Amino acid sequence: MQMLTTLPEMDRLTQFANSLADATDVMAMTFFRKPLDIEAKADDSPVTQADRAIEEEMRRQITEAFPSHGILGEEQEATRLEASSLWVIDPIDGTKSFLSGMPTFGTLIACLTEGRPDLGVISIPPTAERWVGQRGKPTLLNGTPCQTSAKTQLADAILYTTSPDSFDAAGLAQFETLSKRAALRRFGGDCYGYGLLASGHVDLLLEMSLQPYDYMALVPVIEGAGGVITDWEGRPLTLKSEGKIIAAASAPLHAEALTALRRNDTIGKP
Amino acid sequence: MQMLTTLPEMDRLTQFANSLADATDVMAMTFFRKPLDIEAKADDSPVTQADRAIEEEMRRQITEAFPSHGILGEEQEATRLEASSLWVIDPIDGTKSFLSGMPTFGTLIACLTEGRPDLGVISIPPTAERWVGQRGKPTLLNGTPCQTSAKTQLADAILYTTSPDSFDAAGLAQFETLSKRAALRRFGGDCYGYGLLASGHVDLLLEMSLQPYDYMALVPVIEGAGGVITDWEGRPLTLKSEGKIIAAASAPLHAEALTALRRNDTIGKP
Repeated sequence: MQMLTTLPEMDRLTQFANSLADATDVMAMTFFRKPLDIEAKADDSPVTQADRAIEEEMRRQITEAFPSHGILGEEQEATRLEASSLWVIDPIDGTKSFLSGMPTFGTLIACLTEGRPDLGVISIPPTAERWVGQRGKPTLLNGTPCQTSAKTQLADAILYTTSPDSFDAAGLAQFETLSKRAALRRFGGDCYGYGLLASGHVDLLLEMSLQPYDYMALVPVIEGAGGVITDWEGRPLTLKSEGKIIAAASAPLHAEALTALRRNDTIGKP
Repeated sequence: MQMLTTLPEMDRLTQFANSLADATDVMAMTFFRKPLDIEAKADDSPVTQADRAIEEEMRRQITEAFPSHGILGEEQEATRLEASSLWVIDPIDGTKSFLSGMPTFGTLIACLTEGRPDLGVISIPPTAERWVGQRGKPTLLNGTPCQTSAKTQLADAILYTTSPDSFDAAGLAQFETLSKRAALRRFGGDCYGYGLLASGHVDLLLEMSLQPYDYMALVPVIEGAGGVITDWEGRPLTLKSEGKIIAAASAPLHAEALTALRRNDTIGKP
């Protein structure tokens, strides 16, 4: 078995991830809100071009800096999945936002050690906001530590989900049950909602149908800010999780939300 | 009957609205993402305080500059509703966004002449974007003319709505019918979606349950950018409209969307 990553090595990975995000931010903005983006064909759309170009550059930089590391991304075949250190990347998370000029899409970068997400970056190019989580350190928003809210009760919680369209029928029923007990619910957000959770503005997120490149970077960001992020059964997220994600500002809120999800109580439903 | 507003007078109103929005932008940002915002009680929440404080300042400035004009706002009783010139204002449109740190809320300012919206401002404080529409002139985004997209077909259109929760059952069925025929649909946005429509990034918006202070400012912005905005029957929006709003990038797209709405064809619905 290989050694776990040491702190100085982790710091180096984080520094690298930051400089990688600097580069992808610039690239993303060259595609964002350009007429090309929304006028090209569906089979080779500029979004796909943007995704591909950014992932290509990310892979190039990662491979150059860490030739032995693996890479799992949205656009290309995974490489060296068995490596001890695995980068899990999404060049553009929030495709619908990106496509429609909404400035809340982001680039996601995670680095896993033996399958465990130790480093996560959520970088939002249009608003120049970047959340960086590194295991054992406080999560930083643009270099300043941030913290989840102190909310512990579902009745006080602001709940986000990206779209009702992401749920299957059973999942939607569970979302309805949960959201009826929350203070308010809002749709839209993608990875940006997790940044808002890390900074204490949103208290709870429920999503379905996410892929590892959608959720791995979120884990160190949320945990380093004091939050809890698991699957809907309360289990840690791994590469094999089925994409049902719940993230909460605090452990008590997470526990109450999990219970509400399990109960799936539809009494009193309008 | 009073004279219609002349062009120099309109220019003066627009100049005033811009300086008013400069002031409200600063005020909104003093409340945005402050811990106070989400920790106070529901009965006198800081959001209500923010709304009230901003509307209070807007009313003060409008009354000082135009003592004979009327004002219809979200927070206080309307004044001089019978006046030839009526300001219709929403200090914070997108309350859920504002409350949860999402940078896509806005301040809406409209000026009506004999009931017709001649001037509209959508100002987004966190992103420093401001759309200004003045009847007979091109809509400006931060001083530069903007234009709706060239999309004419529903099958190519990017459709936005703020939330499925805004619709009643019949309205939701109509939204489902319409959105199944669109290229994609995205939730979330509030007034920001209309700015994105004016700038050609979003092609179609469908909303329900809006109030005059939610939609009046949108009319000159959309029309001055080449778009069409009406109620769901295709009628111009007035103070007495029932709050069902459809906005499209072009007249053909608007016509096709209206037809789809009327048909309310649920064949093939999943």
